[in-house]
Amino acid sequence: MIRVFVTGGTFDKEYNEIAGTLDFRATHLPEMLRLGRSRVDVAVTTLMMIDSLDMTAADRGRIVAGCAGAAESRIVITHGTDTMVETARAIADAAGAAGADPGGKTIVLTGAMVPYAFGSSDGLFNLGSALSFVQVLPAGVYIAMNGRYFSWNRVQKNRGTGTFEDVG
Amino acid sequence: MIRVFVTGGTFDKEYNEIAGTLDFRATHLPEMLRLGRSRVDVAVTTLMMIDSLDMTAADRGRIVAGCAGAAESRIVITHGTDTMVETARAIADAAGAAGADPGGKTIVLTGAMVPYAFGSSDGLFNLGSALSFVQVLPAGVYIAMNGRYFSWNRVQKNRGTGTFEDVG
Amino acid sequence: MIRVFVTGGTFDKEYNEIAGTLDFRATHLPEMLRLGRSRVDVAVTTLMMIDSLDMTAADRGRIVAGCAGAAESRIVITHGTDTMVETARAIADAAGAAGADPGGKTIVLTGAMVPYAFGSSDGLFNLGSALSFVQVLPAGVYIAMNGRYFSWNRVQKNRGTGTFEDVG
Amino acid sequence: MIRVFVTGGTFDKEYNEIAGTLDFRATHLPEMLRLGRSRVDVAVTTLMMIDSLDMTAADRGRIVAGCAGAAESRIVITHGTDTMVETARAIADAAGAAGADPGGKTIVLTGAMVPYAFGSSDGLFNLGSALSFVQVLPAGVYIAMNGRYFSWNRVQKNRGTGTFEDVG
Repeated sequence: MIRVFVTGGTFDKEYNEIAGTLDFRATHLPEMLRLGRSRVDVAVTTLMMIDSLDMTAADRGRIVAGCAGAAESRIVITHGTDTMVETARAIADAAGAAGADPGGKTIVLTGAMVPYAFGSSDGLFNLGSALSFVQVLPAGVYIAMNGRYFSWNRVQKNRGTGTFEDVG
Repeated sequence: MIRVFVTGGTFDKEYNEIAGTLDFRATHLPEMLRLGRSRVDVAVTTLMMIDSLDMTAADRGRIVAGCAGAAESRIVITHGTDTMVETARAIADAAGAAGADPGGKTIVLTGAMVPYAFGSSDGLFNLGSALSFVQVLPAGVYIAMNGRYFSWNRVQKNRGTGTFEDVG
Repeated sequence: MIRVFVTGGTFDKEYNEIAGTLDFRATHLPEMLRLGRSRVDVAVTTLMMIDSLDMTAADRGRIVAGCAGAAESRIVITHGTDTMVETARAIADAAGAAGADPGGKTIVLTGAMVPYAFGSSDGLFNLGSALSFVQVLPAGVYIAMNGRYFSWNRVQKNRGTGTFEDVG
Repeated sequence: MIRVFVTGGTFDKEYNEIAGTLDFRATHLPEMLRLGRSRVDVAVTTLMMIDSLDMTAADRGRIVAGCAGAAESRIVITHGTDTMVETARAIADAAGAAGADPGGKTIVLTGAMVPYAFGSSDGLFNLGSALSFVQVLPAGVYIAMNGRYFSWNRVQKNRGTGTFEDVG
């Protein structure tokens, strides 16, 4: 069983046709899993539905607590890309000892550059990727984006290209 | 570097609006990698563009030879779902010793239940999944479908549900 | 009030992922009207769900009878493109006197070259077009395709290009 | 020949994945006409690419001048929905005599509630509708939305429902 924590991000944004704005309603995760014909045993919990630029330390605290409290040892977190690295670090820091092993759990954060509801989204690709990495990577905190995985302490988002890349 | 061998399958079928039939033209792989914002180092080779029900022993021989001859140690093969298991077995058999280790290579076959060009396709999810599994699984021959991975000798397609499942 | 008669055709074909074939299930008309945010007063009746190449004289008789019996004076018929012209002629012939005025009704046939359910469909464009033409054209039998309208006796489908064009 | 003036609006907005905002790039009109397999003789001119809430009197003056100066007697204008009625009135007022007949031209404004580039757009439906109405309506200034047409002086946008409705 894999636990999926939904936190919002571009992944789940929708076009509000009355207001002309990008808003959140319910998560698209269940629909995406259906589209992917996923037969992975998954339990989805929505922790929050926010833009990751609006994420506070208290919000991060809830994500950290969610990971620590989860009965599952494999966890996927959907998250806005702008502060995904910061949240990965918060989870690793909470695990102590450089986050090498957050309670024996494999935790993978992913997101999307374009909302799933729009035609050109990378969301479905990223979800397939994150669900796969989480099944086989050893315990640790990772980011899965652009078809790759990165350890939490060796990654940054390049805001110019909109892609994740190695650092360190 | 990951080698991707394209063989056709539902993945790459398109609607021919003049004939009203489902045909093959060029592969959608490059477009799908672009949509997924993939930054994985990939080289795509089209071996054939056929329905896997039409695949002959000679066709399978070309796939086996492609895997054996590839310089890369990580290979993804896109393939029709109907005989995907048969091709996986052919690759493993050619490796001898129960296919446990085909020349030290990790080979992952994937496909789609609905053509990528159609709205409701699982193709992008499966591609994200296969590209991820191939980066982390040990040497061996696998099938990646439904968000899961299976060893070549422990999987079958359930034709009633259209999903892959464990056997043995 | 506009009456819409559904007869099937490419418009309503879907990909059957278990069989790998193009089949009919329920019509997509209500979903398409919702997507178009249509506020036209419309009543949808499914007469049949068939490929127009399989349409018999008896099937055409049911369409003719449907038009004659409809209380509405404005009617849209969704239809396969291959024999759309033949059905238009059957309706006009039944009206007598060269079909110039089928009981004072405006009847517009339309269809699609690509199933609505596929990404690249012309269906929504054609539906918007047919629903608009039927509101303003004088009594008569017409085909609305490719953004244009044609009188039933001055049109043919060019099977090479997949478009409708003037004749005579 | 039908002249199409592009002015922007939701119709042509795109998701900017680097900035996370809704922006304008080039118009989608040619792609939409291709998708609709349109064989209508059309010439597309981009007058501006702006949100209609940002449209100034000077902008409206350019649209009025464009209509007056066009050699074609049938004109479609793509426009944001928020001030579409105001622009229709400006065109009619410029024609004098209550805009009953703007130089013998039939002018149809249309738009979309959801960007064409997003999956759930009404844009293709509306374009099919506007292109059809403009071919058959008598000289005058109209709005084509929700599958219906309205004279410029008998329509308002209901901002609560996002639909156009009769007034007066």
